[in-house]
Amino acid sequence: MIKTIEWTDEGVVMIDQRRLPSEELYPVFTTYDEVAVAIEEMVIRGAPAIGVAAAMGIALGAKQSAASTPDELESDFNQACDRIAKTRPTAVNLFWAVKRMGEVFRAVKQSGASIEAIQNRLIKEALNIHEEDIESNKRMGRYGAQLLPQDVTILTHCNAGALATAGYGTALGVVRAAVEAGKTVNVIADETRPFLQGARLTAWELAKDDIPVTLITDNMAGHFMKSGQINCVVVGADRIAANGDVANKIGTYMVALAAHANNIPFYVAAPLSTIDLELKSGDEIPIENRVITEVTHIRGQQISPDGIQVANPAFDVTPHRYIAAIITDAGVARAPYEESLKALFK
Amino acid sequence: MIKTIEWTDEGVVMIDQRRLPSEELYPVFTTYDEVAVAIEEMVIRGAPAIGVAAAMGIALGAKQSAASTPDELESDFNQACDRIAKTRPTAVNLFWAVKRMGEVFRAVKQSGASIEAIQNRLIKEALNIHEEDIESNKRMGRYGAQLLPQDVTILTHCNAGALATAGYGTALGVVRAAVEAGKTVNVIADETRPFLQGARLTAWELAKDDIPVTLITDNMAGHFMKSGQINCVVVGADRIAANGDVANKIGTYMVALAAHANNIPFYVAAPLSTIDLELKSGDEIPIENRVITEVTHIRGQQISPDGIQVANPAFDVTPHRYIAAIITDAGVARAPYEESLKALFK
Repeated sequence: MIKTIEWTDEGVVMIDQRRLPSEELYPVFTTYDEVAVAIEEMVIRGAPAIGVAAAMGIALGAKQSAASTPDELESDFNQACDRIAKTRPTAVNLFWAVKRMGEVFRAVKQSGASIEAIQNRLIKEALNIHEEDIESNKRMGRYGAQLLPQDVTILTHCNAGALATAGYGTALGVVRAAVEAGKTVNVIADETRPFLQGARLTAWELAKDDIPVTLITDNMAGHFMKSGQINCVVVGADRIAANGDVANKIGTYMVALAAHANNIPFYVAAPLSTIDLELKSGDEIPIENRVITEVTHIRGQQISPDGIQVANPAFDVTPHRYIAAIITDAGVARAPYEESLKALFK
Repeated sequence: MIKTIEWTDEGVVMIDQRRLPSEELYPVFTTYDEVAVAIEEMVIRGAPAIGVAAAMGIALGAKQSAASTPDELESDFNQACDRIAKTRPTAVNLFWAVKRMGEVFRAVKQSGASIEAIQNRLIKEALNIHEEDIESNKRMGRYGAQLLPQDVTILTHCNAGALATAGYGTALGVVRAAVEAGKTVNVIADETRPFLQGARLTAWELAKDDIPVTLITDNMAGHFMKSGQINCVVVGADRIAANGDVANKIGTYMVALAAHANNIPFYVAAPLSTIDLELKSGDEIPIENRVITEVTHIRGQQISPDGIQVANPAFDVTPHRYIAAIITDAGVARAPYEESLKALFK
């Protein structure tokens, strides 16, 4: 069992995903600011995992507060929330977790609880989010596995696995549930430039679980679809708008286009916490641009010449018309998504 | 002026494209077998450049023959041709060059020429192929430039530039001709995994010529098309079937799908020597699979875990229905390609 993130007395322990697969390191992050930097620098990544890290970072900030009154604690708490909320803009699970922690804080404070009681309640809430995420992934996996044929080759992009969540995974949760249901499953993993989440993380965690995986470069996906070697696509999501448009790791859109052109069902697996009903369409989802050295350098080695421009948008938006179904922890939604997604929240 | 390949008294000199852009080295290849290995290991690559290298390799083999009769020379010549023809399967320019050298050999031999005269004639033919390729690229460039708007951002995949030809380039020849025609040209270059021809070669040669270039990873192309930042796509080709289906560097098919979905014209630029009228459709084009370390390692560093499967097809086929026009050295062909391509040869 891969331990992506854990709450300990010393602080938040996370597997350093930048170093995988060559090194399996578990550094401890001892302040909310260290947790924030870990999110920014992608020690931890993947929308649900970012949500858990955000909650634990906020709990850590509250725990370490030297406040002597609940009002002072609130000020420290808000500072931690603000810092955490500024780490990454696209994955909505981050803001969902910040909001949820804030609601708990205010409710407990209003009830007249002591500083220590508030602190303990926040830690409890972060642990709840962690635990619920694993349960939610397992439910999602079961819903998703039912959509797959008995013998299936699944293409996935980026890493929406145990490493992108508290455990089990969203897209790879569907893969794991299909295996557990006795299906014959092969995975084709896009390497996912520039950060190589597919080559480094998806390939690593599937190999660890003895699930057959074939690594390809991102630009090969269309070729394997056209030559009939892929039955369906399952990816995760960083934010889903009310109309079903999906922001996910850069390149997802091209995978969806290739699936559409080849009549291959394209599934998105994500918990309700990834769905942002406040945004009408994917056009409103903010897309993070990251440092260009992620593109120009691989493992510290420069691959491109100096004196050129470089772009590095970390996500793209896949229009809902290319999505066969959105698999959530509350069931499977299909078009028209305006209605089906809203219904899941009831 | 970039010198991709040159005939010298010491042998065939090629810029080592595996080392660009970090090092600019010009090793000399002194036997036909060394030239064959250079093609296999991608010291030189790009369909037209492979054609030139093949011709020069064969000329070198003939020049170094110790034959004392024309018949003995023919045996040595055939051995060199066979070796060169086995280097890479997809780019048809290789076979075109082998065939052309064979026709010249047989014609000169039949005329009763001396061994030395035959050898000199073969060297002359290799030099002709080299020179014609540059001229053909310039013609193609002028045809192609006329298709572009005055202010244009062109996406290209892989390297179809000076480095992929004897000089000037096919797709990048169109870019250069548009610049020479006074157009405002920006290029967006796909990095082109696994061999990184875009990041290493296209970016390098455009920067050298002061043509503005922005490097992206392959999976970003769709995002930039959808957000309206690309006006057209121009790529090269390794083999074009009679119906207009185009084999080109892996990933070209996904670029074509994204262009199609966003109503962006997708152009292919290639000389007549890349068109193989003997193949009815792209289904018949052999696709080379290369060593998996190209995918699992970048600059000697392993990026993926052990114990997984890896695939590495080097090319894919783009169906003709996604191609707005094929720009050749004999003019521009449009659908229906069965007729328009055949007409170019008249």
